[in-house]
Amino acid sequence: MDMMLTQAPEFATSQWFNTDKPISLSDLRGRVVVIEAFQMLCPGCVSHTLPQAQTIQKAFSADEVAVIGLHTVFEHHAAMTPTSLKAFLHEYRIEFPVGVDLPSKTGGIPQTMARYQLRGTPSTILIDRKGRIRKHKFGQEHDLVMGAEITSLLLEPIAPSRDIVARNISEHITPAEGCNEEGCFLP
Amino acid sequence: MDMMLTQAPEFATSQWFNTDKPISLSDLRGRVVVIEAFQMLCPGCVSHTLPQAQTIQKAFSADEVAVIGLHTVFEHHAAMTPTSLKAFLHEYRIEFPVGVDLPSKTGGIPQTMARYQLRGTPSTILIDRKGRIRKHKFGQEHDLVMGAEITSLLLEPIAPSRDIVARNISEHITPAEGCNEEGCFLP
Amino acid sequence: MDMMLTQAPEFATSQWFNTDKPISLSDLRGRVVVIEAFQMLCPGCVSHTLPQAQTIQKAFSADEVAVIGLHTVFEHHAAMTPTSLKAFLHEYRIEFPVGVDLPSKTGGIPQTMARYQLRGTPSTILIDRKGRIRKHKFGQEHDLVMGAEITSLLLEPIAPSRDIVARNISEHITPAEGCNEEGCFLP
Amino acid sequence: MDMMLTQAPEFATSQWFNTDKPISLSDLRGRVVVIEAFQMLCPGCVSHTLPQAQTIQKAFSADEVAVIGLHTVFEHHAAMTPTSLKAFLHEYRIEFPVGVDLPSKTGGIPQTMARYQLRGTPSTILIDRKGRIRKHKFGQEHDLVMGAEITSLLLEPIAPSRDIVARNISEHITPAEGCNEEGCFLP
Repeated sequence: MDMMLTQAPEFATSQWFNTDKPISLSDLRGRVVVIEAFQMLCPGCVSHTLPQAQTIQKAFSADEVAVIGLHTVFEHHAAMTPTSLKAFLHEYRIEFPVGVDLPSKTGGIPQTMARYQLRGTPSTILIDRKGRIRKHKFGQEHDLVMGAEITSLLLEPIAPSRDIVARNISEHITPAEGCNEEGCFLP
Repeated sequence: MDMMLTQAPEFATSQWFNTDKPISLSDLRGRVVVIEAFQMLCPGCVSHTLPQAQTIQKAFSADEVAVIGLHTVFEHHAAMTPTSLKAFLHEYRIEFPVGVDLPSKTGGIPQTMARYQLRGTPSTILIDRKGRIRKHKFGQEHDLVMGAEITSLLLEPIAPSRDIVARNISEHITPAEGCNEEGCFLP
Repeated sequence: MDMMLTQAPEFATSQWFNTDKPISLSDLRGRVVVIEAFQMLCPGCVSHTLPQAQTIQKAFSADEVAVIGLHTVFEHHAAMTPTSLKAFLHEYRIEFPVGVDLPSKTGGIPQTMARYQLRGTPSTILIDRKGRIRKHKFGQEHDLVMGAEITSLLLEPIAPSRDIVARNISEHITPAEGCNEEGCFLP
Repeated sequence: MDMMLTQAPEFATSQWFNTDKPISLSDLRGRVVVIEAFQMLCPGCVSHTLPQAQTIQKAFSADEVAVIGLHTVFEHHAAMTPTSLKAFLHEYRIEFPVGVDLPSKTGGIPQTMARYQLRGTPSTILIDRKGRIRKHKFGQEHDLVMGAEITSLLLEPIAPSRDIVARNISEHITPAEGCNEEGCFLP
């Protein structure tokens, strides 16, 4: 039921890279949006989800699918400044737009991350053409499932998607502290 | 235009594994069919496309997507007998049905392989719910693209698919003789 | 102490590939010998130890290190005949000599495998320049450790090796039945 | 001939991590030393040579082999500060000592990097027990070869090493600008 779905909250960012002007979610209405929330020093982001986001960008038309990075720093703030992020994006050849999540006024979880209630990094969020959150994944998702789910949303304007992915083939995530190969966990 | 699409030819097989009775394509009408043509001694099949087929089987509902292996031996016939294949399927834990392509009467390319005009192994064929060939891939396809394309066909009964996968991210295959990491080429 | 070391038993083979004439261990005296015991349908052999053996062959001089494959079939005998093995070696581009372990007269574990008391496949055995067994590894060994251990044996004619590899970084193997990603276990 | 070998120049560093006090090469005399020169935003360092250095640390006794990281920043200086490096070492669980190469007074290549005439990052340097440079590798070296070469140096106090690694199995590095999967090149 459509009325059960949550409208995706707007980005709160301090700065953007790889785009001439700040991006708001409302600009992307009509496209499927893939938000890749990451920290540049999160090993699981570097080895898995950022490469996956680059593949998504290559595999789908930019008119249909918008890939957006969100740098959601919730630890080691002084180590992951926008200056460091800029060099990181250059060296890892990340070409999709990346917004810097607006730091919390009280020093904790940054604001967009809090709005989306993320558990840590990496987190991947899929938003449908109508701006509603449809998937919220902490950790890694298999490429095959990600390709299927994006496509399912892409075809929705024509007809409602059925639940075509029968079983989630991702590994179960054991909650942990700090970072492990799955990701970096909120304290 | 629908009338431009080729109806997938029926299987010609001598034997089946992992199924109680022989499978005919007509039994699968209404489902999307993934045919994985392979040889058990083809390195690219063992390392890439057979694991991908196993993932497809896990990711999608069996009511919606049928994964079918086809053992299309076109070289080293005495080395890849049904007896050897049976042990191979057991050791590699392949659980989807696998048909043994019917040998040619003249000793060359087996009959289903000839009907589908395959270039070698691995080859992956996607057939839509109406039994028509929609994709014909020699070598490896990226998991993300494969997930997208299967999903696109799955949603077709509801509405015609648009061409949503903008760019093919697979590597270009350089024609070769024998087997390389991409696959085994027909002479 | 030298007298504690076991002299490596001679090969008992029915047939050889990739060599003009049968190889006996005594022919290799003076060289370090790496015996790679495998079955062509053992997934862990195909994905890990056979590629490692190929790397060893490339990395060291053939005058110093002899890499020998041993096809130790202890299950699915009809599926892994010398005919199948020959095609396997061709398709996987294995160029070192491979002996076919002589079947047991009673149908169980083949004779060389029994002499070496192997636990299953893959098993890697290192033999020093004097023909003595120095390492006996079931499952996978890290390339770095394997490179260190072979080198340690290579330098022994000049001086006795000390135990320079402090900690074994291989994964612990949980005994199992049949084949898993580690290897194929004897019943 | 010993007299042909270059004595390894001393480190020039501004700061150390993972050690209570600064390390000088002379403190390590008698051990084989592996210097891993890296930049925290060099993709080839993160994916290949730093994990290899961690494996070396695990595989060999610390009494015999000293693994030392050297953060040789020659680009994006403001992005790879000691503050960022500290968080990087924490998140990637790097536990061997890491020195920060002393910046050049003129703003270019840092001082230890210049003394060693490195071509870029990653670079791995092997120093023998007598403090002499024995290997100087830009880019990636295969684990098997690295294990062999370290072991060869380890056994030298007992007897001079022969050149036992016959062929270098690493890929040839095509000179490039910036960073690619091999490493980051000096301008």
